[in-house]
Amino acid sequence: MGREAPGALPPGAAAYVLGSPALAAELEAVGIPHLGPGPAALPGPAPADWAQAPLDPAVRAVLVGFDEHFSYAKLCQALRYLLRGGSDCLLVGTNRDHRLPLEGGTGIPGTGCLVKAVETAAQREAFIVGKPNRYMFDCVVSEFNIDPARTIMVGDRLDTDILMGNSCGLTTLLTLTGVTALDEVKGHQESDCPARQSLVPDYYVDSIADLLPALGD
Amino acid sequence: MGREAPGALPPGAAAYVLGSPALAAELEAVGIPHLGPGPAALPGPAPADWAQAPLDPAVRAVLVGFDEHFSYAKLCQALRYLLRGGSDCLLVGTNRDHRLPLEGGTGIPGTGCLVKAVETAAQREAFIVGKPNRYMFDCVVSEFNIDPARTIMVGDRLDTDILMGNSCGLTTLLTLTGVTALDEVKGHQESDCPARQSLVPDYYVDSIADLLPALGD
Repeated sequence: MGREAPGALPPGAAAYVLGSPALAAELEAVGIPHLGPGPAALPGPAPADWAQAPLDPAVRAVLVGFDEHFSYAKLCQALRYLLRGGSDCLLVGTNRDHRLPLEGGTGIPGTGCLVKAVETAAQREAFIVGKPNRYMFDCVVSEFNIDPARTIMVGDRLDTDILMGNSCGLTTLLTLTGVTALDEVKGHQESDCPARQSLVPDYYVDSIADLLPALGD
Repeated sequence: MGREAPGALPPGAAAYVLGSPALAAELEAVGIPHLGPGPAALPGPAPADWAQAPLDPAVRAVLVGFDEHFSYAKLCQALRYLLRGGSDCLLVGTNRDHRLPLEGGTGIPGTGCLVKAVETAAQREAFIVGKPNRYMFDCVVSEFNIDPARTIMVGDRLDTDILMGNSCGLTTLLTLTGVTALDEVKGHQESDCPARQSLVPDYYVDSIADLLPALGD
């Protein structure tokens, strides 16, 4: 969380993306060439073939997001870009969520599992741009000239939304429509632990709809 | 490394295997039904489909080895077996190697990357049966009535072969034909750190062939 953001990519540098077409579209919107989304097969039957598959000379970053097509083949390519570039190749993850919750209490593996696999292969830590990292908030501040003291962070998750809001000096508001129950908040509030205190929102609402009257003022 | 081995599978229990056909054959040899090896596709376009794919009622263990067909689909199934079974479903890994070295100094992702992905999804630690864990050595001892004081461990890797040998009270011999150079050994030997000292072999040979005369005595 406290790590310095990596430097910007040099002009023309491309990203190898373990992620969705939506993530690729985000890169497109800011003019970063990319490759990777979609299924990939291993380029031959033997490990020696895998280590010799073509690499795009322009790639200077590996970006790991949620990727339903994540595979050993893609993990292998990601490692090869990171080994080729060394510290000149950025390793960036969108978040560390270990699971995505689904209706009925079940869940599926989250992006954090994929980030961990790449980090383990490369033996280096990814820079995580998503909440609770303040990186995205800092980008919004510099783009829109926002005053944190007059800003409220609304979210449904304590360890990402509320933690980021609190650590950026924002007023925080939890909606109970998401993954968090009020009991969890109370447990943190009654704790002496500063780490748990940093997860307590200033306000909560049962539903985001409860905010509408206030916004009408 | 110091963790107690998990209990045996109940009769008829099956294993979900992220691994090679060779690993599946090992299970077959000891009569454990299994499924999993080979490619797998996600069972539908949406996360809700993935969380509803059929699960084999007999599965009581998830076994993670090297799997060139590792995919998000398989990670998802592994998590579902682990969530369904809770602590009644074993999570076992063959090793934590983060990379498999190839000729020319390159490498490809090792089993440790896949184990980490599953551990992160399940939020629990796998029991690792491979070196440097002493589990396999203990199995060999009980099967063949071996006297550790009269046993020598021969290997080419300090952090697996030699560490296991030293921690099991064996004489250890390093061959320099593998991944380890003598400089690395000397660094550990000159260190005051007990963890590094435990990586120093009793003997070394340039080549395993150097052992032949001694074996002839």
